[in-house]
Amino acid sequence: MRGPITSDYRGDLDRAVDVLNQALATELVCVLRYKRHYYMSRGMYKDAVAGEFLEHATQEQEHADRIAERITQLGGAPNFNPEGMASRSHSEYKEGDGMIDMIKENLVAERVAIESYREMVKFFGENDPTTRRMLESILAVEEEHANDMVDLLEQHEPSVRGEA
Amino acid sequence: MRGPITSDYRGDLDRAVDVLNQALATELVCVLRYKRHYYMSRGMYKDAVAGEFLEHATQEQEHADRIAERITQLGGAPNFNPEGMASRSHSEYKEGDGMIDMIKENLVAERVAIESYREMVKFFGENDPTTRRMLESILAVEEEHANDMVDLLEQHEPSVRGEA
Amino acid sequence: MRGPITSDYRGDLDRAVDVLNQALATELVCVLRYKRHYYMSRGMYKDAVAGEFLEHATQEQEHADRIAERITQLGGAPNFNPEGMASRSHSEYKEGDGMIDMIKENLVAERVAIESYREMVKFFGENDPTTRRMLESILAVEEEHANDMVDLLEQHEPSVRGEA
Amino acid sequence: MRGPITSDYRGDLDRAVDVLNQALATELVCVLRYKRHYYMSRGMYKDAVAGEFLEHATQEQEHADRIAERITQLGGAPNFNPEGMASRSHSEYKEGDGMIDMIKENLVAERVAIESYREMVKFFGENDPTTRRMLESILAVEEEHANDMVDLLEQHEPSVRGEA
Amino acid sequence: MRGPITSDYRGDLDRAVDVLNQALATELVCVLRYKRHYYMSRGMYKDAVAGEFLEHATQEQEHADRIAERITQLGGAPNFNPEGMASRSHSEYKEGDGMIDMIKENLVAERVAIESYREMVKFFGENDPTTRRMLESILAVEEEHANDMVDLLEQHEPSVRGEA
Amino acid sequence: MRGPITSDYRGDLDRAVDVLNQALATELVCVLRYKRHYYMSRGMYKDAVAGEFLEHATQEQEHADRIAERITQLGGAPNFNPEGMASRSHSEYKEGDGMIDMIKENLVAERVAIESYREMVKFFGENDPTTRRMLESILAVEEEHANDMVDLLEQHEPSVRGEA
Amino acid sequence: MRGPITSDYRGDLDRAVDVLNQALATELVCVLRYKRHYYMSRGMYKDAVAGEFLEHATQEQEHADRIAERITQLGGAPNFNPEGMASRSHSEYKEGDGMIDMIKENLVAERVAIESYREMVKFFGENDPTTRRMLESILAVEEEHANDMVDLLEQHEPSVRGEA
Amino acid sequence: MRGPITSDYRGDLDRAVDVLNQALATELVCVLRYKRHYYMSRGMYKDAVAGEFLEHATQEQEHADRIAERITQLGGAPNFNPEGMASRSHSEYKEGDGMIDMIKENLVAERVAIESYREMVKFFGENDPTTRRMLESILAVEEEHANDMVDLLEQHEPSVRGEA
Amino acid sequence: MRGPITSDYRGDLDRAVDVLNQALATELVCVLRYKRHYYMSRGMYKDAVAGEFLEHATQEQEHADRIAERITQLGGAPNFNPEGMASRSHSEYKEGDGMIDMIKENLVAERVAIESYREMVKFFGENDPTTRRMLESILAVEEEHANDMVDLLEQHEPSVRGEA
Amino acid sequence: MRGPITSDYRGDLDRAVDVLNQALATELVCVLRYKRHYYMSRGMYKDAVAGEFLEHATQEQEHADRIAERITQLGGAPNFNPEGMASRSHSEYKEGDGMIDMIKENLVAERVAIESYREMVKFFGENDPTTRRMLESILAVEEEHANDMVDLLEQHEPSVRGEA
Amino acid sequence: MRGPITSDYRGDLDRAVDVLNQALATELVCVLRYKRHYYMSRGMYKDAVAGEFLEHATQEQEHADRIAERITQLGGAPNFNPEGMASRSHSEYKEGDGMIDMIKENLVAERVAIESYREMVKFFGENDPTTRRMLESILAVEEEHANDMVDLLEQHEPSVRGEA
Amino acid sequence: MRGPITSDYRGDLDRAVDVLNQALATELVCVLRYKRHYYMSRGMYKDAVAGEFLEHATQEQEHADRIAERITQLGGAPNFNPEGMASRSHSEYKEGDGMIDMIKENLVAERVAIESYREMVKFFGENDPTTRRMLESILAVEEEHANDMVDLLEQHEPSVRGEA
Repeated sequence: MRGPITSDYRGDLDRAVDVLNQALATELVCVLRYKRHYYMSRGMYKDAVAGEFLEHATQEQEHADRIAERITQLGGAPNFNPEGMASRSHSEYKEGDGMIDMIKENLVAERVAIESYREMVKFFGENDPTTRRMLESILAVEEEHANDMVDLLEQHEPSVRGEA
Repeated sequence: MRGPITSDYRGDLDRAVDVLNQALATELVCVLRYKRHYYMSRGMYKDAVAGEFLEHATQEQEHADRIAERITQLGGAPNFNPEGMASRSHSEYKEGDGMIDMIKENLVAERVAIESYREMVKFFGENDPTTRRMLESILAVEEEHANDMVDLLEQHEPSVRGEA
Repeated sequence: MRGPITSDYRGDLDRAVDVLNQALATELVCVLRYKRHYYMSRGMYKDAVAGEFLEHATQEQEHADRIAERITQLGGAPNFNPEGMASRSHSEYKEGDGMIDMIKENLVAERVAIESYREMVKFFGENDPTTRRMLESILAVEEEHANDMVDLLEQHEPSVRGEA
Repeated sequence: MRGPITSDYRGDLDRAVDVLNQALATELVCVLRYKRHYYMSRGMYKDAVAGEFLEHATQEQEHADRIAERITQLGGAPNFNPEGMASRSHSEYKEGDGMIDMIKENLVAERVAIESYREMVKFFGENDPTTRRMLESILAVEEEHANDMVDLLEQHEPSVRGEA
Repeated sequence: MRGPITSDYRGDLDRAVDVLNQALATELVCVLRYKRHYYMSRGMYKDAVAGEFLEHATQEQEHADRIAERITQLGGAPNFNPEGMASRSHSEYKEGDGMIDMIKENLVAERVAIESYREMVKFFGENDPTTRRMLESILAVEEEHANDMVDLLEQHEPSVRGEA
Repeated sequence: MRGPITSDYRGDLDRAVDVLNQALATELVCVLRYKRHYYMSRGMYKDAVAGEFLEHATQEQEHADRIAERITQLGGAPNFNPEGMASRSHSEYKEGDGMIDMIKENLVAERVAIESYREMVKFFGENDPTTRRMLESILAVEEEHANDMVDLLEQHEPSVRGEA
Repeated sequence: MRGPITSDYRGDLDRAVDVLNQALATELVCVLRYKRHYYMSRGMYKDAVAGEFLEHATQEQEHADRIAERITQLGGAPNFNPEGMASRSHSEYKEGDGMIDMIKENLVAERVAIESYREMVKFFGENDPTTRRMLESILAVEEEHANDMVDLLEQHEPSVRGEA
Repeated sequence: MRGPITSDYRGDLDRAVDVLNQALATELVCVLRYKRHYYMSRGMYKDAVAGEFLEHATQEQEHADRIAERITQLGGAPNFNPEGMASRSHSEYKEGDGMIDMIKENLVAERVAIESYREMVKFFGENDPTTRRMLESILAVEEEHANDMVDLLEQHEPSVRGEA
Repeated sequence: MRGPITSDYRGDLDRAVDVLNQALATELVCVLRYKRHYYMSRGMYKDAVAGEFLEHATQEQEHADRIAERITQLGGAPNFNPEGMASRSHSEYKEGDGMIDMIKENLVAERVAIESYREMVKFFGENDPTTRRMLESILAVEEEHANDMVDLLEQHEPSVRGEA
Repeated sequence: MRGPITSDYRGDLDRAVDVLNQALATELVCVLRYKRHYYMSRGMYKDAVAGEFLEHATQEQEHADRIAERITQLGGAPNFNPEGMASRSHSEYKEGDGMIDMIKENLVAERVAIESYREMVKFFGENDPTTRRMLESILAVEEEHANDMVDLLEQHEPSVRGEA
Repeated sequence: MRGPITSDYRGDLDRAVDVLNQALATELVCVLRYKRHYYMSRGMYKDAVAGEFLEHATQEQEHADRIAERITQLGGAPNFNPEGMASRSHSEYKEGDGMIDMIKENLVAERVAIESYREMVKFFGENDPTTRRMLESILAVEEEHANDMVDLLEQHEPSVRGEA
Repeated sequence: MRGPITSDYRGDLDRAVDVLNQALATELVCVLRYKRHYYMSRGMYKDAVAGEFLEHATQEQEHADRIAERITQLGGAPNFNPEGMASRSHSEYKEGDGMIDMIKENLVAERVAIESYREMVKFFGENDPTTRRMLESILAVEEEHANDMVDLLEQHEPSVRGEA
């Protein structure tokens, strides 16, 4: 009577829900950080940059909803508790100082998120293709986000990618 | 001259068509079971439950069509033969006795289907990504169906998920 | 409390449901056969012929639904069970070999269906006019289907009707 | 000069008009009963049940009109007289006590009507196919009405059909 | 390979086509007679009466087309030959003398047609329900035509129906 | 808990419901009489007169529905019982003999209805203005009906109004 | 008092009506022949050829109506009598054997009709220009019909016109 | 150069931003709590209740955005930091246990929010009418939310409002 | 600062870019070959076949663009250099001789492309799910292309699939 | 098998085609002359006159097309050969010298054309009414053209018509 | 006062007009030839081929008009005289025998026209760029026409281009 | 039978096709170079510059299509072969290093293309005006492209044009 969780569901179901709750926390922290940066955007390129921040915030919120939905399908409880959210999250809430700094904080956070999603994709692998496919499609968007941040940096600090 | 079936198509092509014909039989049996349950729905929540059964029947029919299409692309012949359909199918045609029983039968059948699709996804794995991706997307819908059945059960027997 | 089944309902109600379940099986087998032929259509006139097969499949499905509906009105349970469907059905599931052969198989099957519907019409006769009228209108469509198949044959084998 | 009543019109024309006037009275009494029940509907499922009553009242009125039309085609005079209407009618005007009781009264009345229409269909048989076909199509609707009443009963008293 | 004509088609197929060709001739003669009367209409109520004649001519033409279509489905050849049409027809071509006379001629002809359609309905009876149903629906329209003619007569000769 | 019936509702509530049920019976008898006359209309002016009868039947039916609605608002039960309907009604069901006679019967009935509605309007007076206003608007339509009947009579018997 | 027939109407009025009634019979026979051929069309080019037959049947019917109209304007009575229609007609009703044969029969019939219309045009000549112009415009359409038949023949038997 | 903050801005600007950041945290915690409850909704009235939770979550998110916007207008930085969010917030994140419990938790939280918004409205009072009006309109929505929760409770526990 | 390329990006990044540049070259060679065939199409079925070639050319161009985009996301440089393009490509540029030959060349090339995409899918496997998913969706389209070519061959050389 | 050319086609068919080819040549020469004059128009009234020339050229071209169409219906071949066109034509190609002269040339040519069309109308007379009617309608337009030329002359040489 | 012909107009103006009048004659002969072929088209592919002929006729007529316009701009007189038109023209008026022959004649004529236009383009060269550009654009269309004719030949005689 | 290639086509046809195939290769190399630069664009003005590159790539592709079309009209085969494409091309595929470098490479390539198109225009000169005019219009666009590149350079290196 556990819905889609059949006996051949390989691996630890509790661990799966745990991993997804970390992903949920990661997305929620990203939403908060992008919102913060959206409201704190100042200066010459504010419109373009702030617009990018807001668009990312919206997409991260959609990711959070899809993850919470999947957690309930797996019979778990999505953890939205603000207490401990920061520690459950893979990426950090950094406020940044000025536009360049904010963009860099987001880039760092997206890269951390990418790493953790790649881990999760492997974790679910062949055992739970439905969850894996959801995470893969979120991962692809996060990679675009990281690329967008590099693009924004390059426009303000042309030597960035060269440094890479 | 075998279209998309190249020499590196790894694994047994006959077996692949065989597996897909089992999936086809599984979907067709699901259509028949949901149709039966749709027409046998009675009682207080008849409208809502019967409506869910009919919607699932329609979606399973679409799955059957996608699978038949893929079988012809692989150079095989889709087997719609009613003779042996029940044994080719992974899930059973159970008539159920009353609404609760019918919902439970569907849940059981969906769970069996989920298991078999997970197996098939592994079977095609890296050897035939196109078929695997089609099966993965069908699997995701079947998981939603299993979840829907649990939801219906909970509305009639609130303690169900708690039992899980 | 048996709805429209009053005490003057003449003849054997169980037998009536049985007969209708045979009609249901017949229609379901027709759907499966037409679907098979639709997916196996090849060659020069593929588009026109396959389109006809698909249209017939859709209409047979509608017949099956009307019959199942009537069975429940008569207090019976529509039998969608794939086990024994072939033997319950009046027409056969023949796969055919090539376009001409498939058209011929459908023609044969439609003709068998026409015969059995004529029998059923007589069976219900004056005892259950409502069921009889439903079967009569299905019969008329099956006769059109048989005619369509002869038309297709004539276009591919002009001497066909002449042979009759 | 009797219009469509030709010399080969077999059987008793006066009796035919008489039978149809009984059918007319039956329909008119049904209209009155359903109207009464419509206005007396109370309680939780009032909307759904009362709506069903009103829809039936409208359809019975249409039946009455078609029967009256046919009576005049047969050279008779449709009898709308309220005096004796109750005794001419096959079904009774019962007011019922509460929703369940009203639904049951309608079910009883519909079943009586079904029986009498089956009789009439046989009465006209091959001698007057036009009248027979009209009565057959009315019969089919009355059977649906009886089925609707059973459905309503089942929603309030789930064990009803089981009792059958 | 005879399309909808299966071996259980009871009775004489040649005779069936023959009977239908008589019906075809009957309808064609009706068309001709109504056309004649349409063009010969004179006097006070010309518009109303002539309009009725023309409408009937059109409906009889549609009947002729449906009958011819059915003849070809039965593998026969519809006989449109003007030679012998009058003798194949059940109703006569009478020219009439003045409006009253023409209306009466049509009434007579419609009554003859009604009788012959009643016969044909019996002839096909249970053996060919599809043809029977087509003839029954034509019969119903012919009865309306007869009724229309009586109505027209009553408007010109109020004592007509009283005479019946 | 008696809906719109507050403690200041003056006068006898049982008597009020009784009076309205008489009005309801009156309207229902009018519907039946007009329907009868509609179907029995014959002769030269049939179309015009029958159309008038049908329109009145429809309007009387609407009156009956408004009255039944008001009875339930007052906590009463609308009486649709065909038994005793004729005696509860103020106007009679007279079949009439020929067009002129039918028109005259309707005129007499409408005049009786007008008298009784005038009485009822006085009965409710200031005590129940809502019911009174409903009856007043019905009365106005009945007066139009009476006028329509005089108009029809004048067209057939020009000396009628002079006689009135 | 003979409407458009004034004292200077030259020539024999009875003969004029006679000639037009022959034209009427000719057109009616053409309608019957084209209808027959329409229903007997078979084989590969069925759609295109049968469509042409039906279109011609419709146009010939319109010619018949115009001629009948003119006959009544000349004070005559259009003769729709099926008795003797074949002998009154200039063109024959030939059933033909196969598509090519049917097309040829129509061509022959159209050519006969053309000849007879040329004659009639001469007959009315300067004495009745209105009738002559009507016949001339019908003639032009018949010539197009003959041309259409030659076109159809050429598409099926390319050497046809060359033979001319 | 401080935008809308002119020298006459009365009161403590830092304190104002502080208060608004508490409101922001309150709204964000509400969003998280409602989201959690939305995904954890189970049982009979799941659809209706979960829908209400989702709608509230959306409205609280809009409140949060309006408050963050105002904070930046006042020259402050909106604090989206998950660290300490729970303690900055006036209302708590309580997960609840079952539907009734969740509804009660939301009611408690909304009532706490209402109290705190009433306080804030007094704080800004006449000194900053723009902020005050924004808070007043948020307060009105929170009161509606509290009412909605009472409504939901009554449907499950009819005695609730009386107890409140 | 390398955007989505985090330290856990497993496997050889240079090799990944290399593989994708081979895919890019493959797609570009396909575009060139389809364009060549489009312009060299001649003869009876020119329109249909050339249209298919052009459509495929357009879709391959879109694939090339998606691959180039991904290469830049991985920090690589898409290699559009015509020098060495043929050797970097997996499929060949074959001009073909006549329609049948061109279709066959495309079929061969598509099959080679399918093989190489299957290899690449395995290469990226779990290490780079985003790239793998892009290649999987391109692979599905290439399989459809191969199927289209077989369909075209069958229409011109009906025995083709039979040979397989 | 000569389409509309029946054996009663009186007179010499070759001569008929010859005559029509002369008409065709006449129209073509008129087109050329009007075109020449259109391009050579000069002076004060150029716009009006040249416009008239162009309109005539267009209408003569339409005449030529209708004549060529009819020639093919008669089984002939329309002669568009420029060699001998001038001598086949009834009217001449005169270039004219100045506006007045050109208008006069056209007038002369139109008058010659009118004469020749009158001859042709007589030639076909009663033997070929279809051709005659076509020529009659062309003749009417040529008469309008002649009138137009006189109008133009009068505008430039007011005394012209007086002289005529 | 010679309009656009200034003193620096190099080369022989009379010769220029002469050359253009040859082009005019060439186009007019093409119009006549295409018209002839349009009316003489017969047989299976009549519609497609005749349509092409008519389209070319229209385009050649437009060329003729542009050339005549230019001649008048150069102060010359466009020569539309049918006398000598054939000898002034570069391409011939050949009637052809059958469809293939007609297509070939047009191809030959177009090729001759192409040659002559190339000559004329050289003749005007740099001395009169306006006339040259007009001729160049006409030349481009004539080349398309030649290509169209080869396409038509290939569809009827597939080996044609191969022979080239 | 070589379509628009007549015997007076001066110069070497093979050489003409050769020259056009060089132009085709030149355009294809330009497409590849612009695509490369589009994907490699970085830095501040990325959007504007990359947009320009993409637009040029699209226009060069259109040029390639027009040239391929003309090659087939001349009876040649367009050479899309990637082998040798670089050596057939007049302009080089240079990848460039950074934005400035890429713009400069494009400028150099466009200038080389301009030179070669000017050569080709002279080559076709008077012998093949149609091809020459096509090349002239392509040349005009290439000159615009060169200008665009200079514009881009000036925006990044304001001193460029001054240096030029």
